Amino acid sequence: MTNTAQQNDLANAIRSLSMDAVEKANSGHPGLPMGCADIATVLFTKVMKFDPADPHWADRDRFILSAGHGSMLLYSSLYLLGYGDMTIDQVKNFRQLGSKTAGHPEFGHATGIETTTGPLGQGLANSVGFAVAEAKLAAEFGADLVDHHTYVLAGDGCLMEGISQEAISLAGHLKLNKLIVIWDNNNITIDGKVSNADSTDQIARFKAVGWNTIEIDGHDQGAIEKALLDAKASTDKPTLIAAKTTIGFGAPKKAGTEKVHGAPLGAEELAGAKAALGIDYPAFEIPAPILESWRAAGTRSQNLRGEWEARLAKSDKRDEFTRRMSGKLPADFSRAMADYKRKLAEDKPKVASRKASQMALEIINKNVPETLAGSADLTHSNLTNTPETVPFQADNRLGRYMMYGIREHEMGAAMNGVALHGGLIPYGGTFMVFTDYARPAIRLSALMEQRVIYVMTHDSIGLGEDGPTHQPVEHLTALRAIPNLLVFRPADAMETAECWELAMEAKHPSILALSRQNLPALRTEYSAENKSAKGAYNLVGPTDADAVIFATGSEVAIAVEAQKELTEKGISARVVSVPSMELFAQQSDAYKAEIIGTAKARVAVEAGIEMSWNKLLGDKGRFVGMHSFGASGPIDALYGHFGITPKAVVEAVTAQV
Amino acid sequence: MTNTAQQNDLANAIRSLSMDAVEKANSGHPGLPMGCADIATVLFTKVMKFDPADPHWADRDRFILSAGHGSMLLYSSLYLLGYGDMTIDQVKNFRQLGSKTAGHPEFGHATGIETTTGPLGQGLANSVGFAVAEAKLAAEFGADLVDHHTYVLAGDGCLMEGISQEAISLAGHLKLNKLIVIWDNNNITIDGKVSNADSTDQIARFKAVGWNTIEIDGHDQGAIEKALLDAKASTDKPTLIAAKTTIGFGAPKKAGTEKVHGAPLGAEELAGAKAALGIDYPAFEIPAPILESWRAAGTRSQNLRGEWEARLAKSDKRDEFTRRMSGKLPADFSRAMADYKRKLAEDKPKVASRKASQMALEIINKNVPETLAGSADLTHSNLTNTPETVPFQADNRLGRYMMYGIREHEMGAAMNGVALHGGLIPYGGTFMVFTDYARPAIRLSALMEQRVIYVMTHDSIGLGEDGPTHQPVEHLTALRAIPNLLVFRPADAMETAECWELAMEAKHPSILALSRQNLPALRTEYSAENKSAKGAYNLVGPTDADAVIFATGSEVAIAVEAQKELTEKGISARVVSVPSMELFAQQSDAYKAEIIGTAKARVAVEAGIEMSWNKLLGDKGRFVGMHSFGASGPIDALYGHFGITPKAVVEAVTAQV
Repeated sequence: MTNTAQQNDLANAIRSLSMDAVEKANSGHPGLPMGCADIATVLFTKVMKFDPADPHWADRDRFILSAGHGSMLLYSSLYLLGYGDMTIDQVKNFRQLGSKTAGHPEFGHATGIETTTGPLGQGLANSVGFAVAEAKLAAEFGADLVDHHTYVLAGDGCLMEGISQEAISLAGHLKLNKLIVIWDNNNITIDGKVSNADSTDQIARFKAVGWNTIEIDGHDQGAIEKALLDAKASTDKPTLIAAKTTIGFGAPKKAGTEKVHGAPLGAEELAGAKAALGIDYPAFEIPAPILESWRAAGTRSQNLRGEWEARLAKSDKRDEFTRRMSGKLPADFSRAMADYKRKLAEDKPKVASRKASQMALEIINKNVPETLAGSADLTHSNLTNTPETVPFQADNRLGRYMMYGIREHEMGAAMNGVALHGGLIPYGGTFMVFTDYARPAIRLSALMEQRVIYVMTHDSIGLGEDGPTHQPVEHLTALRAIPNLLVFRPADAMETAECWELAMEAKHPSILALSRQNLPALRTEYSAENKSAKGAYNLVGPTDADAVIFATGSEVAIAVEAQKELTEKGISARVVSVPSMELFAQQSDAYKAEIIGTAKARVAVEAGIEMSWNKLLGDKGRFVGMHSFGASGPIDALYGHFGITPKAVVEAVTAQV
Repeated sequence: MTNTAQQNDLANAIRSLSMDAVEKANSGHPGLPMGCADIATVLFTKVMKFDPADPHWADRDRFILSAGHGSMLLYSSLYLLGYGDMTIDQVKNFRQLGSKTAGHPEFGHATGIETTTGPLGQGLANSVGFAVAEAKLAAEFGADLVDHHTYVLAGDGCLMEGISQEAISLAGHLKLNKLIVIWDNNNITIDGKVSNADSTDQIARFKAVGWNTIEIDGHDQGAIEKALLDAKASTDKPTLIAAKTTIGFGAPKKAGTEKVHGAPLGAEELAGAKAALGIDYPAFEIPAPILESWRAAGTRSQNLRGEWEARLAKSDKRDEFTRRMSGKLPADFSRAMADYKRKLAEDKPKVASRKASQMALEIINKNVPETLAGSADLTHSNLTNTPETVPFQADNRLGRYMMYGIREHEMGAAMNGVALHGGLIPYGGTFMVFTDYARPAIRLSALMEQRVIYVMTHDSIGLGEDGPTHQPVEHLTALRAIPNLLVFRPADAMETAECWELAMEAKHPSILALSRQNLPALRTEYSAENKSAKGAYNLVGPTDADAVIFATGSEVAIAVEAQKELTEKGISARVVSVPSMELFAQQSDAYKAEIIGTAKARVAVEAGIEMSWNKLLGDKGRFVGMHSFGASGPIDALYGHFGITPKAVVEAVTAQV
């Protein structure tokens, strides 16, 4: 131990608050805050730039606690630094309903929480998006306005999760030199020693993907500071600082063991730890001199911020930078989309909705400079590219296209990071079926309510010969099940344009489920109203029809065909297109009643499973769709084989009227 | 090129069939089969042991085409080797509905397909399970009966997916020396050069996790053979063979580019490739001398198999080995479970269903030696351990417990491999919310209909303070959406025992959704019939009640409490426990009608979202459950806050009667 008494006092303040909060809650994880208190002390009091008086300062350094279970490390630090919303009462209410101090850090609960963490590896994976956003915005707006670092604290759990490899290999490839990851190398996981389950040489692993690496004693504050400054000096590589720590540092019997990971210390062990650490003050009562030192550290970047504000005020990029960071779309976005929709009404293109998406993106990317496009190695299938989207690479920070590689999970997590950073709107593509690979990140997009747009093509058996491993069947339902997520499945080019518009304007993440196969134009008149905005609307047929047919995406054309056949048979029917069940659920009861209606026959058709339709179908409705996994074969053979045809819809209707 | 003409002829037979099949289907991936034909030729004609006359021979080497899009490599090889079900007509019907030659290899379609691949990384991840199963069974039954290798062909896509890191780090840790991975190192992905998106030094990466590595020219059959023999000689490490190949080898204009990855060559390029390769025979017509050489290679392990059969016939372990490989449970399993259920009826334990699961496992693991337990680093939370489950490690191949580490995705994929290998029944635990991390593997368990048992504890907001990142809300619905998957949510210890019994006997994968919190005993009488087997049944209350309340798991006790309160108010109600919606859906219409009934009031209560209940609820039913993400707080506060209480159920009923 080479720390000064003052350094130890600062670190012990974190330890003390963390132990006390966990003890009071009778729940939580004291081990990490105790083990990483020295690291946090150096980061927050010496190295990072931020200002608790303006926690949203655009050019602040970001800190991401990827090992989110150690949340008390962050809450303690934020309180000590003087973040106004992190009061001592919040610390005392750790893990209580309604507090800002949830079990794991929740974005939006308190300032200083840059992202929601807890599911392991996600914070590390987010951080790549933060660093990409910083690098791109610095290239666009200059280092005068954008020049900050992203710091991550990650544990063995983060590094064992597969997503960590996707994250670090992408970061290394992109040479994100302003990304600095500190590995809490404590040799312990929940089930005991890391060596029970893993023998990875982490230093060699990170070097293999192009990282700078530094190994230090994680309890030596001088060494920590030097490592961080060396890492900041890196010009071409992200840096891993492997910090050897003792989990539960200070706990006399439990330190260095899994026993201190995820449970309160207990009164005796807590008293022993405080004695060992020299903490002689009462629970939650940090002595004034220590608190004052922390608070002084909290204000130490105020001058930097002042200088930055002055530069921004003088900058000719001020308005654009401010707009971009506010998340507001360009003023003429709506007009550009309206022009495009007028053109669609004239052209009536018969295209796949993935192609229609690309056509919409050609308008969007031209008019909205903040989109950051990308694909997980399926660019020419997802059609996520436009003339503007030159690749973002180590040698082109102005690029607008992320070549995410075959890393769907990292794509989702990186997009979360980009959105959280601000200044850019990320969208990214893969096959719909691979939403499964990205699902933990999609869930966090939804939980954090971030504007992340997932462009998911090949959205049904309609993809054909690639077969059941590539054919989504349960995915529309499984995604609709996630709260706060908008799932769009547009029926033609016009609806695709409308859904893109909604996704761009949304306060939530969106999934665009898009077809591989061509779809006829069904909406051939220009409408100033965005009809998709209500989630479901009457597309064709009289409102007092005897039958109502609900459909989405590629199956709307099947419903329309069935409607014609029914009309010929003398059965009046209407077709309701349902581009988004979530938006429909938000409409007034009156509107819902109008759309659902009281027709004798009710049918839904979608090339997916039934589950998400049962609410609309009710007792009497019938479903035409999938009841099993798909199969490999040409598209027409598959639709016939699985009975998703106008004929099947007609039969389902006639059985009811 | 140092190959002999004969060696080239053998490899070109694969190339020719693959090019022709893709061309005829007008769909598919010629690049990999052309690039890896030399590798496959050496593997199948020189190195691997198998017998097309007995494709299920227990001691065969396994080949896993992790890069499943290159399926024609496998189909061509199986045809050439003389697998009876892989006829030339099947090859000609590549990617057609009903053929055995699906776009990606589908387990169960044809012999020689050891696992379904296509979603990248999954085959590599399965292979770890295959190699674990081999090592464990070899330790149990001796090398006389079990002594084979697992070979994997993986592409850059497999290695870029995060799951690959989980797989190789686990394999390296476990020193699975009989696992040999050949990396088709062709520098190309769908979007172009690998170097667009990745700069990983794969050799260094594999060395960092304890692998042996060999680098070769993947078109030099002599070098391939030597590398494979060197790999087989490894006694303490798995081996990576980095084989430099040219994608689309032989195609005059497209070889070495992404253009040959996933589309037919076209007539001109195909003719050019055949000319360049010296293929002078018509499409699908392999000349007799070449076919005969292949067929001779196909029979070359017949002696080995004969010797093995003789050893098995003489072995005192024959009956047990045969039973184990057949997948049949021990004869006295049912009796042991019946005894245990009698004891439960006496004891009436009030325990969490995760604890009840451990109690059931104490019976199962004692009576069923083939269970292979495990957890993704949450052993003492999942309670997946019993006295029998000493860890499976490099120095203890007899261990029965997989310390999977923080690798949920690999756990699922490895369990698929274990189940596919045969001889073992894998189960593994993590938190329910992290089914998201394992979802692509769970889907493949279901698609392949493998007996894999997912022990998913902490199955609702009932886990309390860890908060929304750890609280499943949409997961029951999202899992019920997957075809072929049994989702069990038992209400007490008795139902947990029944559900475990069903999972052990199932032909499908199972999810056991289990509570963290204690649950009262609700089934306090012994029943010879497994009541959970029908998926839903009347638990309490008169069959002609005015109200029916459906519930699962921890909410059944809430429903029972509500039923009592309703009875006191003079409203007769019955409670239906629904341990498995999937099994209930399989019952007769009469049984379903009886259970659903015609009561005036219908309510469902589950601490998850509503979607999967709408079919049962119909037009008039009401749902008591979650409508958003959860929150951090003590369990009682959460159930109150989200309104999942007996009071809420009573109100939902009284609003209808």
